[in-house]
Amino acid sequence: MRVGLDVGGSKTDAVAVAPDGAILARVRRATGWGPDAVTQTIVEAVAELAAAAGAAPGDAVSIGIGTPGQVVDGATVTHAVNLGVERLDLAAAITPVFGVPVRVENDVKAAARGAYALHGGDGTVAYLNLGTGVAAGFVRDGRLWRGARGTAGEVGHISIDPAGPLCRCGQRGCIEVFAGGGAIAERWGRGGALPVRDVFDAADAGDAEATGLRAGLAFGVAAAVRLLVLTVDVDAVVLGGGVSALGDRMLSLVVAELEAGAVASAFVRSLALAERVELLPAGSPAAALGAALIGSDAVPVEQEAVAHG
Amino acid sequence: MRVGLDVGGSKTDAVAVAPDGAILARVRRATGWGPDAVTQTIVEAVAELAAAAGAAPGDAVSIGIGTPGQVVDGATVTHAVNLGVERLDLAAAITPVFGVPVRVENDVKAAARGAYALHGGDGTVAYLNLGTGVAAGFVRDGRLWRGARGTAGEVGHISIDPAGPLCRCGQRGCIEVFAGGGAIAERWGRGGALPVRDVFDAADAGDAEATGLRAGLAFGVAAAVRLLVLTVDVDAVVLGGGVSALGDRMLSLVVAELEAGAVASAFVRSLALAERVELLPAGSPAAALGAALIGSDAVPVEQEAVAHG
Repeated sequence: MRVGLDVGGSKTDAVAVAPDGAILARVRRATGWGPDAVTQTIVEAVAELAAAAGAAPGDAVSIGIGTPGQVVDGATVTHAVNLGVERLDLAAAITPVFGVPVRVENDVKAAARGAYALHGGDGTVAYLNLGTGVAAGFVRDGRLWRGARGTAGEVGHISIDPAGPLCRCGQRGCIEVFAGGGAIAERWGRGGALPVRDVFDAADAGDAEATGLRAGLAFGVAAAVRLLVLTVDVDAVVLGGGVSALGDRMLSLVVAELEAGAVASAFVRSLALAERVELLPAGSPAAALGAALIGSDAVPVEQEAVAHG
Repeated sequence: MRVGLDVGGSKTDAVAVAPDGAILARVRRATGWGPDAVTQTIVEAVAELAAAAGAAPGDAVSIGIGTPGQVVDGATVTHAVNLGVERLDLAAAITPVFGVPVRVENDVKAAARGAYALHGGDGTVAYLNLGTGVAAGFVRDGRLWRGARGTAGEVGHISIDPAGPLCRCGQRGCIEVFAGGGAIAERWGRGGALPVRDVFDAADAGDAEATGLRAGLAFGVAAAVRLLVLTVDVDAVVLGGGVSALGDRMLSLVVAELEAGAVASAFVRSLALAERVELLPAGSPAAALGAALIGSDAVPVEQEAVAHG
């Protein structure tokens, strides 16, 4: 059994994964605030998960943890503002509790690894996370592409319009300022728990500003899909993250934008972009699953085989 | 001895490479027109090269050939309009002549492999070819990244300005329409053997249109560098191709554009883009060298060791 957790700002998602990749059990619980409470949340989630899987926590051969923020050396989380964590060595905090190896990974990268597995586990897949911000992760032949200095997949801050709105990063017309939930909420400026959904609803009702913001979202996501294919040439771009909860309401607009681009250009048409974009299934535990798979990368195969007879 | 050739529209560049990567000899000759003449050019270049290296052509353990156009199965060139070749199985044409394995590769990809070796041969390097068109190749740990369907590195057709000029591909504001030698020549519209150089000269003399085109070139190249780092996160972006013959006249503008972006954004500043961009040394045989290295990938190491005692 390999354990994976996706520690989010509001809740923590945990899965137990069999050697064949099947999900044996899944639990979700509220995430505590600050280093101690985050650690406690993980410990309790692992214990609850083991019980749900009919096993002891020590039966886990590895624990993988996906978190927001930056991750150093596969062990330490830094700048995870949504968790109230400035710096926390999660590997050092969790390993002694269960006596199993712990590996920590950025949550978008973990979700990319999980999306790759859910997509079928072959070829090259980009996971495009549409949350407050926009970022991508790449997986090829089961391995994450991390880049030279850790900025691989930071496609949210590629400018696609020099006359576009100012992004919080200081550039104009970044993909994120069009397609990021945070930027859309700020430009919409009317509060609400689900501002992007509100924008879609208002656009459906004919509001001109909302219609513009919604078109901008499709423009930004389509640009991201196009550049992921034209740069890395991935087999598939899997859309996930909070904004992707809009499901087909969003995907249909992105596909329409990609198809409009294909009408204008034989070259773009040859890329078959609309066929390469898909949504992560709603409610799928991509990040927790990916964390489990990344966690077990550090464990020799024979060790797992022995542990499970 | 590994032989590599870069078969260009006007001339063919050939190098003999020692097992340690050193260039033993280099010859250049005019490229013939059409399938038979192109084949003959290669045969003569290999013979001349072997003589220059003090060896027989059959001493080569492998022959790698970089060509424009598309390459199928590492053997056949298609759509190489600059060579007058619609389809030519170069591996089948050349292998029997010298009795050594032949491998064919797209010239930008071959140049990427060579640029990687010239850069020092480690990490991840993007080669950005600024020729008539704009395209990139990636090499990581000595291996070319080809992508899922062969469009990896087609960054020339990523739009960076929805209000930009129409590109020959049908999209607006592509990187290539700003930074491609063909598009610049067309927009300049005054003929000349070296239109991009003419544009730079006219801009130096105060011509407003030329100044705009020159600024567009810097805008396009800087955007390509930025997106190569933000997507793939390469250690270095090496600029080559015909337009790069402008050398520091071009590089200084690109660096200034990247530095202006860094002033506006702490995030962009953290990427240290200006430090990651460099020019391929003028006159360097990057594509021929890369072709030689790619050609020898197919040859077992021990075979080469035996051949060279």
